[in-house]
Amino acid sequence: MTHQPTGQATAAARLLGLLARDLAPDRLTTDPAATAPYATDRSGARPDGQPLAVVHAEHPDDVRTTLRHAHALRVPVVPRGAGTGLSGAATAPEGTLVLDLARMNRIVELSPDDQLAVVEPGVITADLDRAAAAHGLRYAPDPASAAISTIGGNIATNAGGLRCAKYGVTRDSVLGLDAVLADGTVIRTGRRTVKGVTGYDLTALLTGSEGTLAVITAATVRLRPIPVATATLAAYFSSFAAAAAAATAITAARIEPAMAELLDGPVLAAIDGAQDSNLRARGAALLLVQCDGAGAAEEAAHVARVLEGRAASLDITGDPVEAEALLAARRLALPSLERLGRPLIEDIAVPRSQLAEAVRSIEAISAAHGVPVFTLAHAADGNLHPILVIDPALPDIPEAAWAAASDIFATALRLGGTLTGEHGVGTLKRQWLADELGPDTLALHHRVKSALDPHNILNPGKAI
Amino acid sequence: MTHQPTGQATAAARLLGLLARDLAPDRLTTDPAATAPYATDRSGARPDGQPLAVVHAEHPDDVRTTLRHAHALRVPVVPRGAGTGLSGAATAPEGTLVLDLARMNRIVELSPDDQLAVVEPGVITADLDRAAAAHGLRYAPDPASAAISTIGGNIATNAGGLRCAKYGVTRDSVLGLDAVLADGTVIRTGRRTVKGVTGYDLTALLTGSEGTLAVITAATVRLRPIPVATATLAAYFSSFAAAAAAATAITAARIEPAMAELLDGPVLAAIDGAQDSNLRARGAALLLVQCDGAGAAEEAAHVARVLEGRAASLDITGDPVEAEALLAARRLALPSLERLGRPLIEDIAVPRSQLAEAVRSIEAISAAHGVPVFTLAHAADGNLHPILVIDPALPDIPEAAWAAASDIFATALRLGGTLTGEHGVGTLKRQWLADELGPDTLALHHRVKSALDPHNILNPGKAI
Repeated sequence: MTHQPTGQATAAARLLGLLARDLAPDRLTTDPAATAPYATDRSGARPDGQPLAVVHAEHPDDVRTTLRHAHALRVPVVPRGAGTGLSGAATAPEGTLVLDLARMNRIVELSPDDQLAVVEPGVITADLDRAAAAHGLRYAPDPASAAISTIGGNIATNAGGLRCAKYGVTRDSVLGLDAVLADGTVIRTGRRTVKGVTGYDLTALLTGSEGTLAVITAATVRLRPIPVATATLAAYFSSFAAAAAAATAITAARIEPAMAELLDGPVLAAIDGAQDSNLRARGAALLLVQCDGAGAAEEAAHVARVLEGRAASLDITGDPVEAEALLAARRLALPSLERLGRPLIEDIAVPRSQLAEAVRSIEAISAAHGVPVFTLAHAADGNLHPILVIDPALPDIPEAAWAAASDIFATALRLGGTLTGEHGVGTLKRQWLADELGPDTLALHHRVKSALDPHNILNPGKAI
Repeated sequence: MTHQPTGQATAAARLLGLLARDLAPDRLTTDPAATAPYATDRSGARPDGQPLAVVHAEHPDDVRTTLRHAHALRVPVVPRGAGTGLSGAATAPEGTLVLDLARMNRIVELSPDDQLAVVEPGVITADLDRAAAAHGLRYAPDPASAAISTIGGNIATNAGGLRCAKYGVTRDSVLGLDAVLADGTVIRTGRRTVKGVTGYDLTALLTGSEGTLAVITAATVRLRPIPVATATLAAYFSSFAAAAAAATAITAARIEPAMAELLDGPVLAAIDGAQDSNLRARGAALLLVQCDGAGAAEEAAHVARVLEGRAASLDITGDPVEAEALLAARRLALPSLERLGRPLIEDIAVPRSQLAEAVRSIEAISAAHGVPVFTLAHAADGNLHPILVIDPALPDIPEAAWAAASDIFATALRLGGTLTGEHGVGTLKRQWLADELGPDTLALHHRVKSALDPHNILNPGKAI
């Protein structure tokens, strides 16, 4: 008697047969050695098992075909960009089909006159920014991962970045989307105009939905003029709390910098260790502030007045090359921490007045659990990244790290904040979701999810 | 034999009985003379009949009670702020219950430190802005109706305004909402932080949904620093097309003014007629540009260089009082037109490079149908308000006016634009909705609507 496959296994086999029949041969990978890396993403989260196969879409029709069959057969699909997400939203457990959009990487249109671009989801964010720069424009959202992450992934997580203090998050730069619903229906949301209120804001609904509501096949994004000038300040402080208080003082002075990045002492030491720099010796925390636009120098001078008497040292420059050198420390932070182990990057945001209080709480939590915490913050947004670095030799995240993370989330909520400012919920933060949303609002999320994806095939078990 | 009421009439009678039982006596108006004015709104659209009654909510519990009963009895509910909407979204036909939120007008909290306010929906927009000003802050969205419209209504339509070129539309200033779903369930969306991605962006989904998805009972809105300086330019042109081309040239020069308002010759003449001014003699179109922030003067000088050789005359001022005098013309435009008849205000938006082309098309449509058109534009957004002034003695909108409006919408779509930039679809633009959205995307709207309001009691027949 032959072994009867389960219903699930039958569906999977049938799906692979249909995809092999209906997709071009180079679009489908079923070799386990080749599909294994798609099980995880930059979060380091490892689900059980590995995906059935990977579809490498090159055209919206590949997405439609894949979803139509997966929907009919009820096989879960995990959309994926570059896999640089930090919350596990692109992890693909046993029995899932990965829908990889990395090959859809064309900039379809770049209109300097309308200051917009139409891009496929697999375009690397920094590539779009570079293409825009040739016209004196830029794509404003700049997640720290811009050199390696895709626009589609940025939209799926509603990525933030360094410049969003002034220019907003990804959502604020997405004008419209082409997307495919779970059943293969093609929709188009939004528009090419900077304003428009016809219909519901489905563009915003899909942005940040972590691949659970639809698969994006193109995005119309807003471009903005490159500022005519920038002025950048680097201030060192004797303590992280003093630096956080200084950042709050800038907000309280009614200044709106384009960027205000905060790095604590342990982060500075990690950068020094990796880059042979000497930052930690200059202070226990570094605050980087950038002002831009026609009033950049005047705004920066105002920032300097606010920081006077608070900072241990202060450098200021209007030269973009010098500014890049100052900002390099911030950009090197995560790669430097990755040399120490597997970073578990938290991403809380608090009302801006609570930044210093959040910093104090994080330091107390670190001490109470005996877990070193490295903290970066987008200070002008109240968005903190407390980072726990896990020994990569350990099979699992240690209990103390989970306990510290849990206390950090509780702190965020106690201070009127949120679990995740810009990285998303993915799988890693799902257990705390109901604490923030409450049961009725969470139930509403599931009603919306069911309306768009009635069989729950799109990235199940993520985000909500 | 007594007359048997229909099912609908029975439901209405039962609803009124339950509301009379469960609401405080001053919350319910059933006197036809008192409810009649609630049948219409500032759009002037007149539905058949008049509403059953008006509930004047003073507390979220009144909203819950009202919706719970209306949901159980399947009676349609029309949420209403100040009734200043221009698309008919607040019109209340026969058999509907009006849920008036005007009495919920408290500013619950104003936090200068966190630069946010928590407000009830009935707060007049200008009142919030004034309260913020006491702390050096402002509520950035400034619809022309700010002195008479409510925050709740602004959110329901995702209102734009004069400053949104630089500061975004209402959605960009709404951090979170307290709302009641059709069945009386209380939800809370968003947060008090400027960034946050926990869950779907239900705040944006409700913003601009014109009362069809939920009833807002409180909003957490972002406040921003009042700019340290402004510089305002008034430029007159020999033709409207030349003025529109000049506005496009400002965008092409990579300048981002806070405001760029365009008024055509007929609007200037209407203002002159109402205000005893002398604007039309100075040119056939007026472009008002405001730059703000630390670089305001430098940006305005850049604007002046772009306008040189294009404008017939140019005034520039850094004095806020003089600036207010220049902007007064814009603020007086709609009241001046209302003296001429009932304005039917269209609200198309086009990609910014298409502004001059849109202006030429509108002029041609006006000539072809023999219908005078008065046009205002938020030029930096590509958002045009072609206004048809209808003789108030006419019982209905004349055929030629509908035909001209229809051609204007077709022009917007042909140029890659939208039916409505900031006023909403309401009842007046619904017939063109499918032209813009297409059948599959429109069907998705109905799926979302059903998920939130399965019995279709919230503002049925509006928006989608």
